[in-house]
Amino acid sequence: MTTDLCRSGIGIFDSGFGGLTVMRAIRQLLPCENIIYFGDTARLPYGNKSPDIILRYAIENSTFLIDQGIKVLVIACHTACSFALEHIRAALEIPVVGISEPGIAEVVNLSKNGRVAIIGTRATIASGIYQQKLQLALPKAEITAIACPLFVPLVEEGFLNHPLTELVVQEYLGPLKSMEIDTILLGCTHYPLLQPAIQKHQGDKVVLVDPANACAKKTQTLLRELGLENQEKSQPLYQFYVSDDPDKFRMHGKTFLNYPIEDVRFNFSPSSFVPILNCDENI
Amino acid sequence: MTTDLCRSGIGIFDSGFGGLTVMRAIRQLLPCENIIYFGDTARLPYGNKSPDIILRYAIENSTFLIDQGIKVLVIACHTACSFALEHIRAALEIPVVGISEPGIAEVVNLSKNGRVAIIGTRATIASGIYQQKLQLALPKAEITAIACPLFVPLVEEGFLNHPLTELVVQEYLGPLKSMEIDTILLGCTHYPLLQPAIQKHQGDKVVLVDPANACAKKTQTLLRELGLENQEKSQPLYQFYVSDDPDKFRMHGKTFLNYPIEDVRFNFSPSSFVPILNCDENI
Repeated sequence: MTTDLCRSGIGIFDSGFGGLTVMRAIRQLLPCENIIYFGDTARLPYGNKSPDIILRYAIENSTFLIDQGIKVLVIACHTACSFALEHIRAALEIPVVGISEPGIAEVVNLSKNGRVAIIGTRATIASGIYQQKLQLALPKAEITAIACPLFVPLVEEGFLNHPLTELVVQEYLGPLKSMEIDTILLGCTHYPLLQPAIQKHQGDKVVLVDPANACAKKTQTLLRELGLENQEKSQPLYQFYVSDDPDKFRMHGKTFLNYPIEDVRFNFSPSSFVPILNCDENI
Repeated sequence: MTTDLCRSGIGIFDSGFGGLTVMRAIRQLLPCENIIYFGDTARLPYGNKSPDIILRYAIENSTFLIDQGIKVLVIACHTACSFALEHIRAALEIPVVGISEPGIAEVVNLSKNGRVAIIGTRATIASGIYQQKLQLALPKAEITAIACPLFVPLVEEGFLNHPLTELVVQEYLGPLKSMEIDTILLGCTHYPLLQPAIQKHQGDKVVLVDPANACAKKTQTLLRELGLENQEKSQPLYQFYVSDDPDKFRMHGKTFLNYPIEDVRFNFSPSSFVPILNCDENI
């Protein structure tokens, strides 16, 4: 592989801030890699939108990152993965890592009794994709899937340790307690911030899977296998693009990334995206 | 005025479904008028987005409706009114009715002690527009403004009479109880659906103002003054456009409109909007 290609960045997109937790895991595991992150903050959230629109947004975001010259694309948004991962992977020449698959693989590894739950946005759960993939990987699994639409607004409201959050967790996840579930896949990048509340409700024996680390690991393996690792030991370059207010992203993003965010640029020009992926046929 | 102009429709836009409660009020008061409604369901909600993006969306939505040939524009979204009403009114040749002003006028009429509250999305409250306009109209008013970001997701989740809703209402509106507030402006089109929960919490003496009826009344007055009423007594035509899934809109919309929704068309082409309003200078 040419040094230029190895030096080019890892592209990551999410509907907003949540994917920064995936970037955090990638940054920790691959400290030499340049990263370009796109947060579609002008059109978030994706979780209550339709499959067609989510696919369209995912294609536009991928096209934008491809145009920046990336060597691998990471789809850090579970909802986008549910509806667009296969399509985008088939259409692109560079490798594509979705957050969904490493998460499912980890559930398969960790569950002992095969009774597992998947929680996510309404769109992710309605897609049935996680359920299908998990059933395929673990045919005897008993899978319960629950949409938790209030979790994202609760996180965005900062209600992480609040009586309200306890009540919402009980509302959505109460039914799981009698099912002897041993593993829960956190199928939305906002949910890890509610991990303490969920763990407290479900008890210590239930394993909560945040797929961010597994996704970073898969990205590392892929880059190694393809000889795409950046060998330069200089300070990596992190670039951030958002479709809404860069200042808000700079300010709030660091909580998710656990690292200062400096260079945030505004990008809102879906109409200028070159349709390298055929999106019209699916809309 | 020409019959053709009188026959053309009233254009209404909102970020999604909520504006249908305004259309309901207009339909009841003006049963002969044709109406074209646009719900920007692919980009909702507006309440947590930035002023620039909200202005851009409001301009695009207005431009789309103007292109359909409307005689009056009703901005049924409080958030869009907060950031775009003056701009759009100045740029258009047809009259523009915002939901904000009739609501404020009604608060001014109804408050006896001048202690009033305005509740709305984060963006609406942060704009300060409602507070400024109300203070101007009622200089001695003591105004409390509270953002209630969880109200919209609660309504969308259907939690109208749920212990959770009571707790959220207490969280946001608890501080009002000691303030001797006599009037609360429901500054978001989703909030009227929480009216029973809010009324129960605040007590019967507090008046909750849903500006939908006042907005319909203002539209009627305007059409009369300008001689723009439709004199034909035939069945009016209602057209609906959305930027995401028409089926979902058809299904859920009727709860807000209280009337069957049949003809819903998909429109998602911001790039094809003719920029009759100069939007770039503000972005």
